[in-house]
Amino acid sequence: MQADINELKEKAKQAKAASKKLAFTPTRVKNEALLAIAQALLYKEDIILHNNGKDYKEAEASGMSAAMLDRLMLDSKRLKGISDDVKTVAALPDPVGEIIEERTLPNGLLLTKKRVPLGVIGAIYESRPNVTVDISVLCLKAGNAVVLRGGKESARSNLALASTVQEAAYKSGLPAGSVQFIESPDRGLVDHMLKMKEYIDLVIPRGGAPLIKFVRDNAAMAVVAGGIGVCHMYVDESAKIDNAVAIAYNAKVQRPTVCNALDCVLVHKDIATKFLPLMAKEWARAGVEMHCDKRSLEILKSSAGLDIKPAVDDDWGKEFLALIGAIKVVDSLDEALEHIDRYGSGHSEAIASEDKASIERFLNEVDAACVYANASTRFTDGAQFGMGAEIGISTQKFHARGPMALREITSYKWCITGSGQVRP
Amino acid sequence: MQADINELKEKAKQAKAASKKLAFTPTRVKNEALLAIAQALLYKEDIILHNNGKDYKEAEASGMSAAMLDRLMLDSKRLKGISDDVKTVAALPDPVGEIIEERTLPNGLLLTKKRVPLGVIGAIYESRPNVTVDISVLCLKAGNAVVLRGGKESARSNLALASTVQEAAYKSGLPAGSVQFIESPDRGLVDHMLKMKEYIDLVIPRGGAPLIKFVRDNAAMAVVAGGIGVCHMYVDESAKIDNAVAIAYNAKVQRPTVCNALDCVLVHKDIATKFLPLMAKEWARAGVEMHCDKRSLEILKSSAGLDIKPAVDDDWGKEFLALIGAIKVVDSLDEALEHIDRYGSGHSEAIASEDKASIERFLNEVDAACVYANASTRFTDGAQFGMGAEIGISTQKFHARGPMALREITSYKWCITGSGQVRP
Repeated sequence: MQADINELKEKAKQAKAASKKLAFTPTRVKNEALLAIAQALLYKEDIILHNNGKDYKEAEASGMSAAMLDRLMLDSKRLKGISDDVKTVAALPDPVGEIIEERTLPNGLLLTKKRVPLGVIGAIYESRPNVTVDISVLCLKAGNAVVLRGGKESARSNLALASTVQEAAYKSGLPAGSVQFIESPDRGLVDHMLKMKEYIDLVIPRGGAPLIKFVRDNAAMAVVAGGIGVCHMYVDESAKIDNAVAIAYNAKVQRPTVCNALDCVLVHKDIATKFLPLMAKEWARAGVEMHCDKRSLEILKSSAGLDIKPAVDDDWGKEFLALIGAIKVVDSLDEALEHIDRYGSGHSEAIASEDKASIERFLNEVDAACVYANASTRFTDGAQFGMGAEIGISTQKFHARGPMALREITSYKWCITGSGQVRP
Repeated sequence: MQADINELKEKAKQAKAASKKLAFTPTRVKNEALLAIAQALLYKEDIILHNNGKDYKEAEASGMSAAMLDRLMLDSKRLKGISDDVKTVAALPDPVGEIIEERTLPNGLLLTKKRVPLGVIGAIYESRPNVTVDISVLCLKAGNAVVLRGGKESARSNLALASTVQEAAYKSGLPAGSVQFIESPDRGLVDHMLKMKEYIDLVIPRGGAPLIKFVRDNAAMAVVAGGIGVCHMYVDESAKIDNAVAIAYNAKVQRPTVCNALDCVLVHKDIATKFLPLMAKEWARAGVEMHCDKRSLEILKSSAGLDIKPAVDDDWGKEFLALIGAIKVVDSLDEALEHIDRYGSGHSEAIASEDKASIERFLNEVDAACVYANASTRFTDGAQFGMGAEIGISTQKFHARGPMALREITSYKWCITGSGQVRP
């Protein structure tokens, strides 16, 4: 264990040293490195898939669920997808050096607020091996070094991917040590990593709620985490019913296992009898199990073919990550806002309404990273927002909120140019 | 103690409730409240100065230094100054609701990134009573509630000021509970306050290095702290000597007790014999004690009337906060950059140079909140930067860096407006 800790420390230290050079590595060099990484991922397909196959077999033997196995699995097509994503990041504008603000003060000083990298980013993630590549290239493009710590289920896949990235990055002229990968499976190492604030500037945990909580509670450095997305949709009395049904269907059904999927529908009492049977019919088509409050149960109980049951207290504020949805009839927009304030997780919340005043109140008053009027919560995503990529979705208000891509892993500095000015 | 903890918790909870209303209190109401606070500070002059007088007497009797007593002392003129500063903040643009970014996606969704308040800000500060007012009004203007915890030396002054602010804010229509003040002198309360992340979103410590370290090490919520400013000035071989002397004088002498004052001059060997005697003569005029490395000592030892002595290891990287300056001759810009990288605290660093390439390298490569070319480090200040006010100076890279004013105590949210869009 002590040897592993020493190695971890050495790697973090090397990352810090590399970050100081990466901070002013030209855009051209970074982009060439990313394209070389994209290419290397294809060249090394054999070894990557071979390693992934071993991970897969071991995971299968240990009884991993089919859904998790699917997340772990790589094939030629998926690897090609990962490689293409790297090219996408290469094509994005370099955030480093971007001038955020510039002005000349009355005394003639030129004040320039310039975007700079954060330094070293620690990534602690579970399962999906593509994260190894995604996070590495986003960090490199934004001029940050990275220390990667993946889950043990995909240890061999991650190692093969990280080695490929490291080699291609180094050969392309990026500073040695820019990408560090922690191999040892020892869980205690994470604890030590979280204390190395001297070397690691920011930690991004990606995984389930327990991992995120552990990182939040134990990290000595800054953390940006997303985590739980308990998403609501409020159907206002003025809503276009067709729109509202389509949005509720998309948000619940299109990909139920992700954080921006819909968990709970709140519907105004004056539209509930028209809206709910139509929505429930659609949900039933997709096999959604509905957990209904008293009033919605009363409305839906006579419809045929629905999988409905009375909601329990735990259903409110629950992230289902499955084809389950909670339904509640409310008396007013105010009741909906109170419900969301109490049970929401600050991720994505939506209103379906044709009333301007209600939409404005909802967008203003709901305290979440992303608030929607007449659109699906499923759009909360870096690529969908036009950021080109995503390193995670932040539900905190500090530093970055919502989808995080390149800019969100940068800081800034003030450059002040004068001609001998002194303070009076 | 338990009663105090309960009271603290109740106050933090009230602040959280107030913050939800403050977040969408109109600009007009906030500005009127600030003007009412400015006025109330003058109306209540008698009671405020009476309380301050008691604090002052007690501090004097306890042997507080003259400099600290001066920081504690209020009189009519200073109170008028505080009141005027509140009017300045009232006149600043409201950061809340500012549209940071807006675009229409190809699918027709209108994406708006809007500035919103952070929520509740906890302020833990020492000594200077004006901080009670400054932080309160900056928080209110940016739509944040605030929980104030001042130092015990100015307990009575802070209470009188906070009560004045609270009363005027409430009478002007700001939500009850927007400004909370912790009266109990029990130091252990700070510990409890730092764990209340459910109610307090951000803590800003203002005071000496030990306070800042304590807050950083113990806070469960986000922290923005400044603290130590170890500021260097590198005099390049190409520097205009007059400019460099004037800047070194201003940066060291104009107000030596603050974080943006100069601590160490690094001078290129090829200009040292010309520059140093001139600078030292000016410094000597102001009574600056000079801690010199071998080479600078050699240059200066023949000048008359200087207070010079050999530097010790501890002089490098030291924040003097006094009329003391370290001096070192370096062989190159690279050596200066290495010195600053090793000993700087990421606050403010300057170069005096007429060489474009050297200036560019310095501004790019020095990793600090504020980097200056041919200007005094003393400009690192919210008001000087045109921000109108200042809540502190951040030396961290996360969330905010450099002078922090209104925008720096906000977050943002994404508002997405559609017409029924669903994710394909």
